[in-house]
Amino acid sequence: MRLQFATWPEVETHLERSTGILIPVGSTEQHGPGGLIGTDALVAEAIAARAASEHDRILVAPVLAYAPAQFNLSFPGTVSLRAATFSQVVVDVVDSLAAGGFDAFYFLNGHGANIAPVRCACHDLHQRRVLARPAMAPLKFRLKSWWEFPETDALRRELYGAGEGMHATPSEISVTQAISTAVRSDHTAKSWTPLPVERLRDLAGDAHEDARLHRASFPDGRVGSNSALSSAEHGEALLCTAARELAADYRRFVADPAW
Amino acid sequence: MRLQFATWPEVETHLERSTGILIPVGSTEQHGPGGLIGTDALVAEAIAARAASEHDRILVAPVLAYAPAQFNLSFPGTVSLRAATFSQVVVDVVDSLAAGGFDAFYFLNGHGANIAPVRCACHDLHQRRVLARPAMAPLKFRLKSWWEFPETDALRRELYGAGEGMHATPSEISVTQAISTAVRSDHTAKSWTPLPVERLRDLAGDAHEDARLHRASFPDGRVGSNSALSSAEHGEALLCTAARELAADYRRFVADPAW
Amino acid sequence: MRLQFATWPEVETHLERSTGILIPVGSTEQHGPGGLIGTDALVAEAIAARAASEHDRILVAPVLAYAPAQFNLSFPGTVSLRAATFSQVVVDVVDSLAAGGFDAFYFLNGHGANIAPVRCACHDLHQRRVLARPAMAPLKFRLKSWWEFPETDALRRELYGAGEGMHATPSEISVTQAISTAVRSDHTAKSWTPLPVERLRDLAGDAHEDARLHRASFPDGRVGSNSALSSAEHGEALLCTAARELAADYRRFVADPAW
Amino acid sequence: MRLQFATWPEVETHLERSTGILIPVGSTEQHGPGGLIGTDALVAEAIAARAASEHDRILVAPVLAYAPAQFNLSFPGTVSLRAATFSQVVVDVVDSLAAGGFDAFYFLNGHGANIAPVRCACHDLHQRRVLARPAMAPLKFRLKSWWEFPETDALRRELYGAGEGMHATPSEISVTQAISTAVRSDHTAKSWTPLPVERLRDLAGDAHEDARLHRASFPDGRVGSNSALSSAEHGEALLCTAARELAADYRRFVADPAW
Amino acid sequence: MRLQFATWPEVETHLERSTGILIPVGSTEQHGPGGLIGTDALVAEAIAARAASEHDRILVAPVLAYAPAQFNLSFPGTVSLRAATFSQVVVDVVDSLAAGGFDAFYFLNGHGANIAPVRCACHDLHQRRVLARPAMAPLKFRLKSWWEFPETDALRRELYGAGEGMHATPSEISVTQAISTAVRSDHTAKSWTPLPVERLRDLAGDAHEDARLHRASFPDGRVGSNSALSSAEHGEALLCTAARELAADYRRFVADPAW
Amino acid sequence: MRLQFATWPEVETHLERSTGILIPVGSTEQHGPGGLIGTDALVAEAIAARAASEHDRILVAPVLAYAPAQFNLSFPGTVSLRAATFSQVVVDVVDSLAAGGFDAFYFLNGHGANIAPVRCACHDLHQRRVLARPAMAPLKFRLKSWWEFPETDALRRELYGAGEGMHATPSEISVTQAISTAVRSDHTAKSWTPLPVERLRDLAGDAHEDARLHRASFPDGRVGSNSALSSAEHGEALLCTAARELAADYRRFVADPAW
Repeated sequence: MRLQFATWPEVETHLERSTGILIPVGSTEQHGPGGLIGTDALVAEAIAARAASEHDRILVAPVLAYAPAQFNLSFPGTVSLRAATFSQVVVDVVDSLAAGGFDAFYFLNGHGANIAPVRCACHDLHQRRVLARPAMAPLKFRLKSWWEFPETDALRRELYGAGEGMHATPSEISVTQAISTAVRSDHTAKSWTPLPVERLRDLAGDAHEDARLHRASFPDGRVGSNSALSSAEHGEALLCTAARELAADYRRFVADPAW
Repeated sequence: MRLQFATWPEVETHLERSTGILIPVGSTEQHGPGGLIGTDALVAEAIAARAASEHDRILVAPVLAYAPAQFNLSFPGTVSLRAATFSQVVVDVVDSLAAGGFDAFYFLNGHGANIAPVRCACHDLHQRRVLARPAMAPLKFRLKSWWEFPETDALRRELYGAGEGMHATPSEISVTQAISTAVRSDHTAKSWTPLPVERLRDLAGDAHEDARLHRASFPDGRVGSNSALSSAEHGEALLCTAARELAADYRRFVADPAW
Repeated sequence: MRLQFATWPEVETHLERSTGILIPVGSTEQHGPGGLIGTDALVAEAIAARAASEHDRILVAPVLAYAPAQFNLSFPGTVSLRAATFSQVVVDVVDSLAAGGFDAFYFLNGHGANIAPVRCACHDLHQRRVLARPAMAPLKFRLKSWWEFPETDALRRELYGAGEGMHATPSEISVTQAISTAVRSDHTAKSWTPLPVERLRDLAGDAHEDARLHRASFPDGRVGSNSALSSAEHGEALLCTAARELAADYRRFVADPAW
Repeated sequence: MRLQFATWPEVETHLERSTGILIPVGSTEQHGPGGLIGTDALVAEAIAARAASEHDRILVAPVLAYAPAQFNLSFPGTVSLRAATFSQVVVDVVDSLAAGGFDAFYFLNGHGANIAPVRCACHDLHQRRVLARPAMAPLKFRLKSWWEFPETDALRRELYGAGEGMHATPSEISVTQAISTAVRSDHTAKSWTPLPVERLRDLAGDAHEDARLHRASFPDGRVGSNSALSSAEHGEALLCTAARELAADYRRFVADPAW
Repeated sequence: MRLQFATWPEVETHLERSTGILIPVGSTEQHGPGGLIGTDALVAEAIAARAASEHDRILVAPVLAYAPAQFNLSFPGTVSLRAATFSQVVVDVVDSLAAGGFDAFYFLNGHGANIAPVRCACHDLHQRRVLARPAMAPLKFRLKSWWEFPETDALRRELYGAGEGMHATPSEISVTQAISTAVRSDHTAKSWTPLPVERLRDLAGDAHEDARLHRASFPDGRVGSNSALSSAEHGEALLCTAARELAADYRRFVADPAW
Repeated sequence: MRLQFATWPEVETHLERSTGILIPVGSTEQHGPGGLIGTDALVAEAIAARAASEHDRILVAPVLAYAPAQFNLSFPGTVSLRAATFSQVVVDVVDSLAAGGFDAFYFLNGHGANIAPVRCACHDLHQRRVLARPAMAPLKFRLKSWWEFPETDALRRELYGAGEGMHATPSEISVTQAISTAVRSDHTAKSWTPLPVERLRDLAGDAHEDARLHRASFPDGRVGSNSALSSAEHGEALLCTAARELAADYRRFVADPAW
């Protein structure tokens, strides 16, 4: 069930069976010369929706489409929330749902820079509840990026090898191609120029860099990704695999004995 | 053009023609026993997308789906951002886009409680820019709720009269029926009980009330609305009319001489 | 009774009879070439004080004299709180008084730009109280601008017609003339230049604009108001009428059966 | 000149002669069984207004009537802003006025607990301006409590000796008696019970204590003050002396060579 | 006992005997041409640690080494937290410890500009606890600067007279010389130029000034202090005296009958 | 050079050679029955200080000793800053140092929960600077946890294998034993009970859990760590190795050609 397409009595019924909810988290930022600005949000929401369509005990909230992405601000069309703002959004979303009876929050992530602010939000949610007098009931949180699921990860590596790269990856481009054919079918990926491995390792280890330096390093917006390898068929396979692994991990998380 | 389905070079091209952007603003809250929790976001985004599909100089950002709605927190499934959080989201979205060259922001609103925090955000955006040294270039903002457009307003009054009411209105339910048939077709509206006019006038004049009192006053979530009058046909007519009026008002706002 | 002229035992006695309080809200901003910078605060406080002088069950707090007014920052002497700051002030004032036993807060407003931040504050006060565990007792709020009272509105339209305009209105100037004769009697209003109706309608529909554009549009600070029509006699009549309507509306709001 | 009774062209003229402004800072809190809740605001504003009435180069802003006073929250009628909120108010007031050309801000204080948050606000105003790139022009601030002026301090000690105490002092009560006769003349001070000196020294050295302990220690709200010694005649003498010393100190502060 | 060198079971044992904790508060800012940037933190922590080494019922937390110091930002190496940030740090430290059972917080201060933000933090901690429903148990706070203890104050005046000055004082330099010989022994103090008394009085009465003006007034960073008078022997004597007075005052504060 | 033991002219000289600074980041939280509450701060600062003692081009700031650690709040003595507060501290520290000329900030981390809030702070620092008009000069950041350095990581795995665990690890306990012998030599580590691998993997993948659940899962505070394996000799070897790798990585980061 998807929250935006549900009625409140349906949510009430869901809560009788499960106090878990699945929240996709995306971004609105450039994804290279041929990738969609909404890629991260579209992909996270699509995987979550697919999982929900196959398991009626999964309730999916609307995607958090705006997120921190300062390193892409030199590309027009990118929107970046401050990490502080985004954390507050997560706090308020959780607080509202917790008041209604939810206590298990699974964030399906589609954008690397979301990890830190979601973790900060969870920290501060926990802290406020444990310091309250009387203390408030504990919540639990899980944050997973869809490319972390083992089979999905193996599939993208099998399909693209080193061409997967780090941003505007062929895997995420493929998923958008699978799901947005009704919207547009012309956003073909373009060729790419490989980047030195050393450079990528530095990026991985550090905080994301200043937007101006970022555009100077990656002039067309992709970070080591051969987006041209993407295809809607790959996208469907990735979507399928990730949705299946998500459903299994979500089920373990909510520890639903009756599933 | 819709931002999430565009590439950054396409946004760059848009900016050469227009520095305006259209941002739909919704909510995620109960809409009565048969209305969708995502109604306000779905409707605002649908009207904006329709306008954009007919006018290629209109760029539509992803909908702000989470918003302040404390008065509905006693109904499960409602999410309410604090007004302070929501204003910060608006500030960050505008700041990001302004850095990329946008300077005219049109908010198409689908939820009454958004008006105050969007206005606060615009106030504080203006204030920071005028107090900066050197002062930053001025921005302009417009905030319209889709039911304010004269012909749309006339149409909903003609269709529903006093049955339109104030929340989970047949007009908004109709638009969701027109656009979500692929998702679900079974969310039929239910019968309603009219409310004393005096009560509604008080609500209109005051700030939205406490969630517990609100649910006590309106046990099934509708506020004076005969949601059962809705139909997908009505929805398509409303969508059409509102999109046409939105496009015209947006054009006046951005003052695009070449339109 | 006015709070600043009361003792705490008198407030304790008031609370035995009524848990309501009336809070005037003004501004400190330019009011045209001849209007007082404190106009909005002076008028709101005067009307509230008049109502309290005639009804001993009304307790009036000191006026909130500083408020958001960024659009007037290009005129020297204007002070503008950020909307976020002002909302926090309202939250803290309500929180303090609620701890002492007040639960019904009536804001008498004298400045249009206060409506949004007061509503945001009320939203967030409600939300925090309903989300607390245990939940806190509900509060109720009403926000009215003095020119909204039907008879007051009729009187100002009868006196000034289209000359009333939108800022530095002859009605508010008249009230300051009625109450500040001891302070200064020389601030005579000056002649005015009418503005195109189209321009005013746009202002009404939009958020308040950037301060630099505002001064460019309205070089002497008035917005379509023929302040020269004002007089102390008018002021006294408006004050009288508004105070009477305020007392009646306040009484309905606190629902005081023993009044 | 008092800002709320001035027009913007008058402020413009003032700025040609002086870039200084005098901001009275008060409180809205209990002042013992017979003292007025607005005492601190009334007294600070009265002294500032008197100084301005005698020196036309002094411009006085409306009093900041709401301030931090948590230790008095156990007495009904007390309003306490959080120190964080109050500091933001001071920051916004200064930012607005600085944008208009003011650069010398003199706070005349009437409430001990204001000192810390005003100093914090000044710290953060300085810090933001010096860290900005390009750096913003420096501002200067002075904060004086009216009872610190040497002759005023000597006078209150001569009049009341140990009976002056620390809260609801006969000196502040006297000034309110001098200025509020038109409003009320019946608020006679009551007898007092002396407190052990040790206790008062502890209070002076520590942060203000918890409100519940405070009321337990000082059940009628006065802290060591023999408020019954007050009189309107004393008040006039104190007002006169403090206004004269304020004017002289303000002049030194703004360093006005043409005074 | 020092918290960073304790285990949690040791803290648990401490709490059975005492619910007090001693928190040294310093700064990281220039201290003249020969003084250490960490002077304020080093001195406050050394005095607290000395007191704890002599009294096993004193538990000392790690020093708050970063604090507000904007007036020294024109000297490289100075770090200044915003007062608002620093107050939040104090709030969070107290909240955490209060949850564990501490209720008496003694701040030993080494930097004048800390007084205001610590007081603001204490105010807001009190306010939140008293306004909570149910109200939270009261806390108590004391804030003392080490140079305020009477014998320590007498000793520094006896040793240095007018040469003590206000910043980079020979007394604080002496303490750093006593404790940091293992780290460095070469930071000899340099000669000084006296400042007019009038100038120093103004500084004392006002908020700390803008960093650029501050460096212009005090080009080498000292404010009226003859740092060259310092010696490690003086430092040891001052450390000894202050630690003894601190222990006695802390004991009175926690009111430990079994001491 | 260590900042707290430097003078401002020495920092000025450092800046002529290098605009980099090394900031250790720790925590103040329980570390099992025998580990020190200050472990994370002591270890990070010790490694940084060792590196600086061997390379005079490394400047080390005082450790950030207080950090987010909500999951340990059920153990007395733990202090947890909210992630939001801690991020603000990092922002202010960087802003201050950047104003003085630093532009390369290397955070040496000793506590896993610091990663998210430091990344958030860096994000928001970048965003503010790139959105400023005129834009501010870019900064660069690196965040490394000391156990990530390859040789250090290999050494701890060689010494402890699976006994290293996740909290109160023998490696960090060993370093504290190496450096705190002067302070205390009696904090011997205790025996441990292994935890199921499944449980640990879940922890690694999720956000840190609620403090009450955390203590229930790990009653003595250690998370899978055989702290009893620690020794001062190991500590010295780890300290040595980590300091050497830190210096090399720091040098690459600041890209100092003259090193």
